[in-house]
Amino acid sequence: MYKTPFQITILGSSGAMPTSNRHTTAQLLKHDNKLFLIDCSEGTQIQMRRMKIPLMKINHIFISHFHGDHYLGLPGLLFTMHLLGRSNKLNIYSPPGLKEIIETHFGICNLKTSYSIIFNEIEKGGATIYEDASLKIDTISMLHSIPAYGFLFNEKPLERNIKKKYVNKYNIPVDQILKIKAGASYTTPGGEVLSNEELTIAPPPQRRYAFCSDTGYTESFTDQIEGADTLYHEATFMKEFSELASEKLHSTTAEAATLALKAKVKKLIIGHYSARYDDTQLISYLNEAKAIFNNTYLAKEGKVFDVG
Amino acid sequence: MYKTPFQITILGSSGAMPTSNRHTTAQLLKHDNKLFLIDCSEGTQIQMRRMKIPLMKINHIFISHFHGDHYLGLPGLLFTMHLLGRSNKLNIYSPPGLKEIIETHFGICNLKTSYSIIFNEIEKGGATIYEDASLKIDTISMLHSIPAYGFLFNEKPLERNIKKKYVNKYNIPVDQILKIKAGASYTTPGGEVLSNEELTIAPPPQRRYAFCSDTGYTESFTDQIEGADTLYHEATFMKEFSELASEKLHSTTAEAATLALKAKVKKLIIGHYSARYDDTQLISYLNEAKAIFNNTYLAKEGKVFDVG
Repeated sequence: MYKTPFQITILGSSGAMPTSNRHTTAQLLKHDNKLFLIDCSEGTQIQMRRMKIPLMKINHIFISHFHGDHYLGLPGLLFTMHLLGRSNKLNIYSPPGLKEIIETHFGICNLKTSYSIIFNEIEKGGATIYEDASLKIDTISMLHSIPAYGFLFNEKPLERNIKKKYVNKYNIPVDQILKIKAGASYTTPGGEVLSNEELTIAPPPQRRYAFCSDTGYTESFTDQIEGADTLYHEATFMKEFSELASEKLHSTTAEAATLALKAKVKKLIIGHYSARYDDTQLISYLNEAKAIFNNTYLAKEGKVFDVG
Repeated sequence: MYKTPFQITILGSSGAMPTSNRHTTAQLLKHDNKLFLIDCSEGTQIQMRRMKIPLMKINHIFISHFHGDHYLGLPGLLFTMHLLGRSNKLNIYSPPGLKEIIETHFGICNLKTSYSIIFNEIEKGGATIYEDASLKIDTISMLHSIPAYGFLFNEKPLERNIKKKYVNKYNIPVDQILKIKAGASYTTPGGEVLSNEELTIAPPPQRRYAFCSDTGYTESFTDQIEGADTLYHEATFMKEFSELASEKLHSTTAEAATLALKAKVKKLIIGHYSARYDDTQLISYLNEAKAIFNNTYLAKEGKVFDVG
């Protein structure tokens, strides 16, 4: 149905610390021909190499918060981009404080990067921090022990699809086709006016991806993400540790699923698994969530999900 | 011949940046029952988990210099040690400046670690920075674009081995056995004096391990490492790039091997391979070095080398 790819690739599914086969949080989001990196844990550049992701094509990096498992791969990635001779500027969006960290690292080895880095500081949830012709990205306030933000990737209305038979019949010029795709009607050389509704087919609905990590259970952003095509919500613990989850401002499987249900999203991905669970236990994890919200999937390194 | 283990495990063999299957520089040194970490590149904690190395038993970490590929795994490892509830103090040895970096990371998330970190600043080569009953560790001045140090691990004299037949014959008490192993003679209850030479067998020679990375070719530390049992020397490039190596203050295969020859070491390990070489090319790497110094080995993730 959709011609424009809108996908996320899981680079790390582990919470707090890596295990022997799970990396900590990072995701690659692809929309059309653009690549965005969401969080950048230790080893993210290694994961991208393994998955043959062209890291130099990433121009925008979004950091949710400054717990080590969400950003410690950033200095290494920035070093590598320099070593590879990057010249395109790089935008990073994060809570305040990142510039000092990066400049401390660069300062200690007298590094002047081959490219410029623009540090965009996130001050609040519900703000639009990025916008282009096809995508708008908003922040979401998480409930966590330090300032933490989720990200809502909103696809803009797709172009209407022009019916080929009219293009052929009237030999419509290219400049007019672009206008028609954007919503214009068309007047033939003979003076006949064809309405846009007649000339085109409506595009499929706009898609939305909500990334929510790390957070305790909160319904404060339910309205904002309502009806999203895909929600990634952290689920650090199974139900047995709901008190611990609450104390640490993390979520359980059941809480992530409950939020997905309340927000009426179409698909839920859970991840950020505690290192206490090994891979064989994740099926129980999934079952706990599916009992509440059936269309749930497990984050797993290398897995690619279509947003809608 | 040796009862005391003295081994290094390669955690990363790649120079500058990781590849899909090579991590950047880190090595674990085991002497007797003690574990030391030499450099700590991005992903080192992941490598240790994969190799089932008990990372909480590491009490001393040695950082050669502040290029990203040698220390960027340190913040993540320190975070993980905190999450695991470490209480033992941790000693880190590095050129000046590390405290500021680590405190900047911890400050941004209000982290007070569960253990204390002692930052030991290295000011010069040829200095002894660590000493215990069985090991002494000295710095070695590297030739590099920023202050950089190698490390020389010197085993102290091992105890003499007491001949069992004398223990049985004279029923020598334990306190006396310890003295004899340390070099004392023994007087029997009957007044007979047995010399230490008669009672004991000399231990095998003391072993030494020299870690030299990153460095351009220099003979300035040849005397210091002369006769070492094992030398790890970086070899970023093959001979074809000797000019580039010289310009970047790195070494070639031939230079590492030449230094091993001049320093009369017993064994050479080369690593820190440029990402331009894939694994299939490393046999040529090895051959170039072996043509000059035959007892050369390639560093490879997971490989364990006996120092002597």
